[in-house]
Amino acid sequence: MEKIKIGIVGYGNLGKSAEVAIRQNEDMELVGVFTRRNPTDIKPTGNQIKVYPIADALSMQDKIDVMLLCGGSKSDIPVQGPYFIRYFNTVDGYDTHARIPEYYEQMNEIAIKNGKLALIAGGWDPGMFSIQRILAEAVLPEGKTYTFWGKGVSQGHSDAIRRINGVRDAKQYTIPLETAVNRIKSGEMPELTTREKHLRECFVVAEDGADLAEIERQIKTMPDYFADYDTVVHFISQAELEQNHAGLPHGGRVIRIGKTGGEAQNLQQMEYSLNLDSNPDFTASVLLAYVRAVYRLNQEGQAGAKTVADIAPAYLLPKSADEIRRDYI
Amino acid sequence: MEKIKIGIVGYGNLGKSAEVAIRQNEDMELVGVFTRRNPTDIKPTGNQIKVYPIADALSMQDKIDVMLLCGGSKSDIPVQGPYFIRYFNTVDGYDTHARIPEYYEQMNEIAIKNGKLALIAGGWDPGMFSIQRILAEAVLPEGKTYTFWGKGVSQGHSDAIRRINGVRDAKQYTIPLETAVNRIKSGEMPELTTREKHLRECFVVAEDGADLAEIERQIKTMPDYFADYDTVVHFISQAELEQNHAGLPHGGRVIRIGKTGGEAQNLQQMEYSLNLDSNPDFTASVLLAYVRAVYRLNQEGQAGAKTVADIAPAYLLPKSADEIRRDYI
Repeated sequence: MEKIKIGIVGYGNLGKSAEVAIRQNEDMELVGVFTRRNPTDIKPTGNQIKVYPIADALSMQDKIDVMLLCGGSKSDIPVQGPYFIRYFNTVDGYDTHARIPEYYEQMNEIAIKNGKLALIAGGWDPGMFSIQRILAEAVLPEGKTYTFWGKGVSQGHSDAIRRINGVRDAKQYTIPLETAVNRIKSGEMPELTTREKHLRECFVVAEDGADLAEIERQIKTMPDYFADYDTVVHFISQAELEQNHAGLPHGGRVIRIGKTGGEAQNLQQMEYSLNLDSNPDFTASVLLAYVRAVYRLNQEGQAGAKTVADIAPAYLLPKSADEIRRDYI
Repeated sequence: MEKIKIGIVGYGNLGKSAEVAIRQNEDMELVGVFTRRNPTDIKPTGNQIKVYPIADALSMQDKIDVMLLCGGSKSDIPVQGPYFIRYFNTVDGYDTHARIPEYYEQMNEIAIKNGKLALIAGGWDPGMFSIQRILAEAVLPEGKTYTFWGKGVSQGHSDAIRRINGVRDAKQYTIPLETAVNRIKSGEMPELTTREKHLRECFVVAEDGADLAEIERQIKTMPDYFADYDTVVHFISQAELEQNHAGLPHGGRVIRIGKTGGEAQNLQQMEYSLNLDSNPDFTASVLLAYVRAVYRLNQEGQAGAKTVADIAPAYLLPKSADEIRRDYI
């Protein structure tokens, strides 16, 4: 079998997870990891994996089918996406929801010009949750969709706490409020405020002699991140943080409540939920399924940018159409 | 806006639900109901809905974009699918899982010859659940997928009981066993027998003087339907059946447990669940979303047979690609 040859760009949490996850997919092989750091500083877990400076990628166009962009959405992908899509098919998990339309336009134009295919905004939200929101509304047009995140670690919020003066380390959990979930499932279709949907719980290691009350005040009043939520702050030791809060679990739910029937008398409920021990492992696994789709669609002659909304499920699974009809339908 | 013009073939539970559900979709209109019965015997709930004998459909090819086949999978769809796909795009909920491959081949050949598009095996299982099984395995290649049905009324099993001598009426509930669900969610990945996954509960109205013990024996030993399950039989009055068991609720779950990480140390869980007050309403609603997709894809020039595995989510929702990227991704 001809394997799909993959390059990983960026070797943080997501890149590391992708390296391992490729081994779970028999139809894929990892050609190498590309980094802006000094390649000798990076030690992939697989001992035969090669690490290259990003600039070397250009000379490897015939060796790589799809580049998996594992950098951050804030400053890496907005630069790396438009660069790599000129030379390679790409898959990324760009997750700045508000900027997806403009990122799409940019990627689509360059991709079409170069005959390449980009899957943007893969992962679980955006990604799997986006698919569920679309399916849910398509099949239950009269209703309301709710997305909850957690319980899980928000890396963005943890980082925001770490930037506060006097904070040495921190982990922030996003926790869905079951009272809200229960109101929804009762069929009430409530309008919920940000505060009514999620709680934020913070575990903070302070520097010696730091002003704890001031740190707590700064967290709870931080705009966008915490001000609109009920937030709980616990100060703990570094040892406790490392022992009890080392992982990156996450998850969430998309719930749609719809009504059908002549008098809208029938309540219909759909729920999609994820419960993940490792957020980066799962995100990497989703992106790899879309690597397969991008590879196949580009082989069929398609170019441009796509999101998960544009990909038929069959392209994601390494099975023939006959096998899918026989075993999955 | 140009509306999608729909014909409904068959006016049983599913056809009735489809008639009402079309009104929830602003981009659709119902042209008429087609029946093998005497058209004057059928009274649609919408008072301007026309009812035609099936034979009249042939002269209405320019008036109907998609025919929604609402007959049964046992004897209606295997005849009506191959007939209607010669003249119309079709959508059906053919649900005899084992025969989907041969039905597909037959429909695909005729559809291609006639430039029409058929969506076969839509609904929720096959249908929404098929999509979830494909997505789940694509993103978590190392793992195991479980499908549970219920709690809900199985019309096929209720019918089977009604055919027993001495039975006047019956309703059968398929009930998922929470013990099995809990074992799965613990990460155990058990191999489960039929008996370990579902219980069958039967509410039976017997004829006066019928041999209840014999009816119960015949139910519990009925091959395919009950013999492989733990089955509970309750004899009740017709009045009680009508009061407490009049609806057609159903639902179910697709659960996948996967493992990721270098030592498969991370448990990753996906679950899709439906909780439906009305099974036919929901099935009809799903089929209508695929009517939209079939209409659009045929407008784009596609012909042949497809299943839900072959349709990108965006085709199901009456929104532009821009709106989907902005509001759903």
